[in-house]
Amino acid sequence: MSKGVTPQSKNYSVWYTDIVTKAELADYGPVKGTMVIRPYGFSLWENIKDVFDSMIKETGHVNAYFPLFIPKSFLAKEAEHIEGFAKECAVVTHTRLKSDGEHGVVVDPDSKLEEEVVVRPTSETVIWAMYKKWIQSYRDLPLLINQWANVVRWEMRTRLFLRTSEFLWQEGHTAHATAQEALDETLLILGLYQKLAEEYLAMPVHTGLKSESEKFAGAEATYCIEALMGDKRALQAGTSHYLGQNFAKAFDVTFQTKDNKEELVYATSWGISTRLVGAVIMTHGDDKGLRLPPKIAPFQVVVVPIFRDEESMVAVKNYLSPILSTLRDGGIRVHEDWRKESPGFKFNEWEMKGVPLRLEVGPKDVENGKAVLVRRDSGEKLFVQKDEVGEIVPKLLEDIQKTLFNEAKDFREKNTHRVSSYDDFKDTIANKGGFVRCGWDGTRESERAIKEETKATIRVIPLDENTAELKCIYSGKPARHEVLFAKAY
Amino acid sequence: MSKGVTPQSKNYSVWYTDIVTKAELADYGPVKGTMVIRPYGFSLWENIKDVFDSMIKETGHVNAYFPLFIPKSFLAKEAEHIEGFAKECAVVTHTRLKSDGEHGVVVDPDSKLEEEVVVRPTSETVIWAMYKKWIQSYRDLPLLINQWANVVRWEMRTRLFLRTSEFLWQEGHTAHATAQEALDETLLILGLYQKLAEEYLAMPVHTGLKSESEKFAGAEATYCIEALMGDKRALQAGTSHYLGQNFAKAFDVTFQTKDNKEELVYATSWGISTRLVGAVIMTHGDDKGLRLPPKIAPFQVVVVPIFRDEESMVAVKNYLSPILSTLRDGGIRVHEDWRKESPGFKFNEWEMKGVPLRLEVGPKDVENGKAVLVRRDSGEKLFVQKDEVGEIVPKLLEDIQKTLFNEAKDFREKNTHRVSSYDDFKDTIANKGGFVRCGWDGTRESERAIKEETKATIRVIPLDENTAELKCIYSGKPARHEVLFAKAY
Repeated sequence: MSKGVTPQSKNYSVWYTDIVTKAELADYGPVKGTMVIRPYGFSLWENIKDVFDSMIKETGHVNAYFPLFIPKSFLAKEAEHIEGFAKECAVVTHTRLKSDGEHGVVVDPDSKLEEEVVVRPTSETVIWAMYKKWIQSYRDLPLLINQWANVVRWEMRTRLFLRTSEFLWQEGHTAHATAQEALDETLLILGLYQKLAEEYLAMPVHTGLKSESEKFAGAEATYCIEALMGDKRALQAGTSHYLGQNFAKAFDVTFQTKDNKEELVYATSWGISTRLVGAVIMTHGDDKGLRLPPKIAPFQVVVVPIFRDEESMVAVKNYLSPILSTLRDGGIRVHEDWRKESPGFKFNEWEMKGVPLRLEVGPKDVENGKAVLVRRDSGEKLFVQKDEVGEIVPKLLEDIQKTLFNEAKDFREKNTHRVSSYDDFKDTIANKGGFVRCGWDGTRESERAIKEETKATIRVIPLDENTAELKCIYSGKPARHEVLFAKAY
Repeated sequence: MSKGVTPQSKNYSVWYTDIVTKAELADYGPVKGTMVIRPYGFSLWENIKDVFDSMIKETGHVNAYFPLFIPKSFLAKEAEHIEGFAKECAVVTHTRLKSDGEHGVVVDPDSKLEEEVVVRPTSETVIWAMYKKWIQSYRDLPLLINQWANVVRWEMRTRLFLRTSEFLWQEGHTAHATAQEALDETLLILGLYQKLAEEYLAMPVHTGLKSESEKFAGAEATYCIEALMGDKRALQAGTSHYLGQNFAKAFDVTFQTKDNKEELVYATSWGISTRLVGAVIMTHGDDKGLRLPPKIAPFQVVVVPIFRDEESMVAVKNYLSPILSTLRDGGIRVHEDWRKESPGFKFNEWEMKGVPLRLEVGPKDVENGKAVLVRRDSGEKLFVQKDEVGEIVPKLLEDIQKTLFNEAKDFREKNTHRVSSYDDFKDTIANKGGFVRCGWDGTRESERAIKEETKATIRVIPLDENTAELKCIYSGKPARHEVLFAKAY
């Protein structure tokens, strides 16, 4: 256990905050609810972003940028949308400060705006106002636009990366000629989210539909990827919405079809955010700190050279030089730590920061033509020949990536429960945690009662549901859906 | 001249807006002063961003993210800074909307903030508040952090890319142990800005200092890159500030030196923005539309296939396939336009969008094993053998890149004037435009008088100034500096 980190078993929530701050991923900003993403945390986000950006570009999407400010009235255009977002909006009312006559500043009352503007909580409204200008004919469709941006949902109970007033995300907004095309798009993106989560973040996810009460304000259907964190609570890690013609109606966006008719456009929207960084921490972290999947780790190998004096430092440096060139030429992200702190101090720091592999070389290794590799996932120590390093490192990184995924998947399977009665359900949610997979009669009443009594919600109606002979765990009526319940973030 | 584009000679400002909107680079957002960057314009910005991001990472900088919202009081901490930015701030005062009882929404008065927050116009204040937490010792220095972000400076007279309330930029904020190190950083970045402008945007720039009255609010010294646009007005295209200890004082950021003393930290900040897209348009554009430098063009080659029926389309497609594979394997960005519009329509559209090279192939070319290449910079048409395309295209792109730079440089030299008297100066500014290179006595009085009488400002005190025997163009006194005057954006 690393110095100053609260063990997970003692207090998971304090463990989480310890890791985020001590691994220098993020810090609290001066305005309540805001977050500073520090360079190490940002690099992790950049790697996630780059992977997903390539995925969407390969599938024909393009990036654009829409304004931060939205006219207040736009939010009221889609009835459900306003319900969902009005309660947490940052509202700009003035455009100037002035001196208070002493050393401070006050808002200049003369700069009051005629119509207040809202800082985007999400961009459907401003984007569909533009789509009205850009879409005339079927030739303009599909329109497959994404943006990487900051959004704001006012929030006082801050949890770094998980719940902050401002966060970074991507939001895709597409327009299509038919409902089928829009539905296909929604599922295409769901698949990319799953791929990103499982193949890159090494985080197994369930994919499927949200229930009516959990879906996006303004959507016809919300698909999601849902993961299980180390404290056995679920986390919604990405959502892909089929919006039907709701926003097209609200903003009057029609197009001329091939056979010269006028029709409303079909839409999707979808997003993942910096919340994924929190998901990575809670899926893989342990009491020593982070454990990062190699594919997204800012550094894949950290080199901790061991030396006593200038002379041994030079010897180690010369010895390492060709080894590290080989690794870098192979596309491996290598960081060298030549600071004067003790090796032990550095080991702890890089374990805290979750670097997948540590490469140690000291004067004795130089003498014997050897090197030491230490895996962060298992702690396993490998003594290897100098010439083997270039070949073994990529293999180890691949193995660490797989091992992290398999461990997380085993953990999830072990914590996915089948129950035979509602009493069993309540006991499982209260005392075991994890997912409960069971039947639900499809009514809001059962869903609400379960939530009130147990705090568990329907996380997802999985795509592979099987309702045959299944009964609702609450009402005992025939199940309309097989669902996964859990307490969630 | 392309349909619907106002010629430069008729009205440069209308020409500019025509190009921006017709080439689908950007559009006006619904809130006054805001801009939507459309996919084609955003791709151009992404290419510029990627180039500069690599440059700063190679020189040891890292990216991070700081909050959009700044406490109002922070802006008042640095005396000059508040003067510079208070007049154009978006101020958030409330955090909730509610229904007006009918179909609209109103700001909920109960959600008023205790202390209003400001949307960042620039991030020095919030960043230095964090640096106070992160910097204790010389071991923590230098701190070389950059962020890519949106900033807001309230603005009613919109010019797409050049002047908008919200714009995208990078802002670097570095902290150093000595003044010399900070000055070196300021000049390192100035050099990178020049390299970006000249080698990638094909835009020659003057580099040097701003005068006291033109420098950044809070800086000791502002360096800049300054370019000349097609209408002979100057444009500030990037600034690099040496901040001395001003922000360290304002936020009380000290560090322990190697010999155990307590000292204030030295700082720099530097930025380039989406304004660079405007600079590219006005440096290279003509009456047919954009002319994009190949290194940053979203598409370097556009393929316009010529066909009459399904059969000839298939023949052309099969013929093109290996040619385009060769180009793409060589890293060339190729776009194929298989739409049903006429070739003439497509030629115009891609000329408007400034794609450096057009590749035409029709049934006759297929028969004869030929292809046609058309340069956007010169309009030159090349008839080439099929097998030559893979070799000639990269060479042509390189030549177009150079030609655009040389043309812009020739234009600038032709429009840089030496004058012998103040009357000559006034006549040149009023009737010729461009830069006037002359002596200045270094006083605010001369600078202000010239600005009032001619609207020309000191754009830059060039690094290669030579004051020997030079006199001030206004006062006739010995020149303190050789400077470049111009009317500017």
